[in-house]
Amino acid sequence: MKNDSSSTTLQEVADAAGVSPATVSRFLNGTAKVADDKRKTIERVIEELNYKPNRLAQSLKMGSTRTIGVLTQSLESGYFNKTMTGIEDVMKAAGYVLLIMSGHWHADEEAERVELLIGRRVDGVVILTGNMTDAQILQFSKRVPIVAFGRKLEGDRAIGFSLDNYAAACSAMELLIEQGHRRIAFIAGPSDQEDARARLAGYRDTLARHKLELDPNLVVEGDFQESGGLLAVDQLLASKQRFTAIFAGNDLTAYGARLALYRRSIRVPDDISIIGFDDLHSSMYTTPPLTTIRQPLYEVGTCIANLLLPMLGQPGGAVDIPALSLVVRESVRRIT
Amino acid sequence: MKNDSSSTTLQEVADAAGVSPATVSRFLNGTAKVADDKRKTIERVIEELNYKPNRLAQSLKMGSTRTIGVLTQSLESGYFNKTMTGIEDVMKAAGYVLLIMSGHWHADEEAERVELLIGRRVDGVVILTGNMTDAQILQFSKRVPIVAFGRKLEGDRAIGFSLDNYAAACSAMELLIEQGHRRIAFIAGPSDQEDARARLAGYRDTLARHKLELDPNLVVEGDFQESGGLLAVDQLLASKQRFTAIFAGNDLTAYGARLALYRRSIRVPDDISIIGFDDLHSSMYTTPPLTTIRQPLYEVGTCIANLLLPMLGQPGGAVDIPALSLVVRESVRRIT
Repeated sequence: MKNDSSSTTLQEVADAAGVSPATVSRFLNGTAKVADDKRKTIERVIEELNYKPNRLAQSLKMGSTRTIGVLTQSLESGYFNKTMTGIEDVMKAAGYVLLIMSGHWHADEEAERVELLIGRRVDGVVILTGNMTDAQILQFSKRVPIVAFGRKLEGDRAIGFSLDNYAAACSAMELLIEQGHRRIAFIAGPSDQEDARARLAGYRDTLARHKLELDPNLVVEGDFQESGGLLAVDQLLASKQRFTAIFAGNDLTAYGARLALYRRSIRVPDDISIIGFDDLHSSMYTTPPLTTIRQPLYEVGTCIANLLLPMLGQPGGAVDIPALSLVVRESVRRIT
Repeated sequence: MKNDSSSTTLQEVADAAGVSPATVSRFLNGTAKVADDKRKTIERVIEELNYKPNRLAQSLKMGSTRTIGVLTQSLESGYFNKTMTGIEDVMKAAGYVLLIMSGHWHADEEAERVELLIGRRVDGVVILTGNMTDAQILQFSKRVPIVAFGRKLEGDRAIGFSLDNYAAACSAMELLIEQGHRRIAFIAGPSDQEDARARLAGYRDTLARHKLELDPNLVVEGDFQESGGLLAVDQLLASKQRFTAIFAGNDLTAYGARLALYRRSIRVPDDISIIGFDDLHSSMYTTPPLTTIRQPLYEVGTCIANLLLPMLGQPGGAVDIPALSLVVRESVRRIT
């Protein structure tokens, strides 16, 4: 695969197209709109002269690749991808592109991917949750500035923040209790994830605050996936537990729980109420639409980008750590 | 942001860690597992010597950045992200990473993004559907090898393939007709998308083949999103059309249609059958689970990668264009 840079210069392209070098540069960087006729001419000239802007080599000379490495956990996660859109929108406007890799929640794989990203000379790294230790991330931050989401972290070149999952879980429980529910089942997420532990703690503490007994039979471990929610409800029903509401550790879990109830003709919310956590886009369209906790995923992304930009010597926008909030739809009903 | 390459060499790292340079290289490339104790030592030495492998500069010298540009349409699309996982898995094994950008179905934006990717000196480009013309893509392919999904294309350095949406739409219609349905509503996707047109043609032609009249009142335009499906069914019901089944242009449309029926206490499949198209992961968990056409999205991704690798002078795996298939779940019932 030949990929040599051609000897044609930007100036020659500009001359041949009858525009200024700045216009060609604008066209190439996509930083501003170029009028349609000019764009067509520039495209034709670039094609004719076989011009290849060696932007990457130029950036390398300046010690920057204008690339941000993003370690996500799964390319298929609606959760992380909404956040990546927020990161992308802000970083694109600042002239950066994203190099995205997945760690699949394995600390070893995550560390290898970050190593690869650093090897690619990214200017900064974003780490979306995962299972690496804080110490690992702080070590990496000696080589590249890092913003981590899903953990509190402060280093010379590392910032981490998380949302208050505990308080939001308490507010979900308050809603259920206020609606008259007393026997509330909880489907937990994986106990090695901090968010999952915070949500469980919110469940426990809110029961205690209301002097309601915590029945350990009503707490079932799921896996933050639909299948885990389905199995959890099967297990609750098979063991003949009495409950009027389910607090699902996240929305995917709620979807699975919903299907398990549907299979036994148990109506939601008439027979059993369900509340989720995340507010995935599709939770507006489940039947019934899901009452849940909204994660401000897009805003998390813009916040990450605005924290990272100053570490790259760029002006960043205002940093407001966004808040979780309750979204009341139709899956919870009052009981008497 | 200082990002200069340090003068420490790979050999020095290997010496200090007491391992071979090949092991350090394996560690850095993530191409093979390195034993835990060795890994820890290498990490420590890299940290102590502040070693920065300048892999990118090395690759540039060889005329390759080992980077593949992927133009997706939306980072949040479950549809495209499954395909990207397939691309990622194969390309990662071959030592490439993905540079991902979104075009949002705007031909202009798509072209600008491809221009940016080429400016970043990617070794190859993958274009996932979108609205650029074939001519545009063939022009780009003079500068970089391209694999396009969602269109048939053949050039010196461009290959495109699509799945047979028409045949699959016919098979969805055959199922409905075989189950006794005669008045079948169709919620179309955006008419500027080839897949949407092929599915509509399958609907029309299958009716004709069975000598069933096409009632234009039963064909409503959606937007391939949930909201479009919801509005389409509202419109069908408001205009008092009679129908026993809905063929939704894609699964998201089916979710919206399902909710519109739920709002009026119309049961699925008891009163109305629904069939979708795509088989998104969540379609297993809707209530009822959705009968649909399965798109082999992951396999599309591996196929794309295996088409691209030989164009990069790399060995590619076997290329089998994967097929669409009917997935029968519970949203369609026989009527008499």
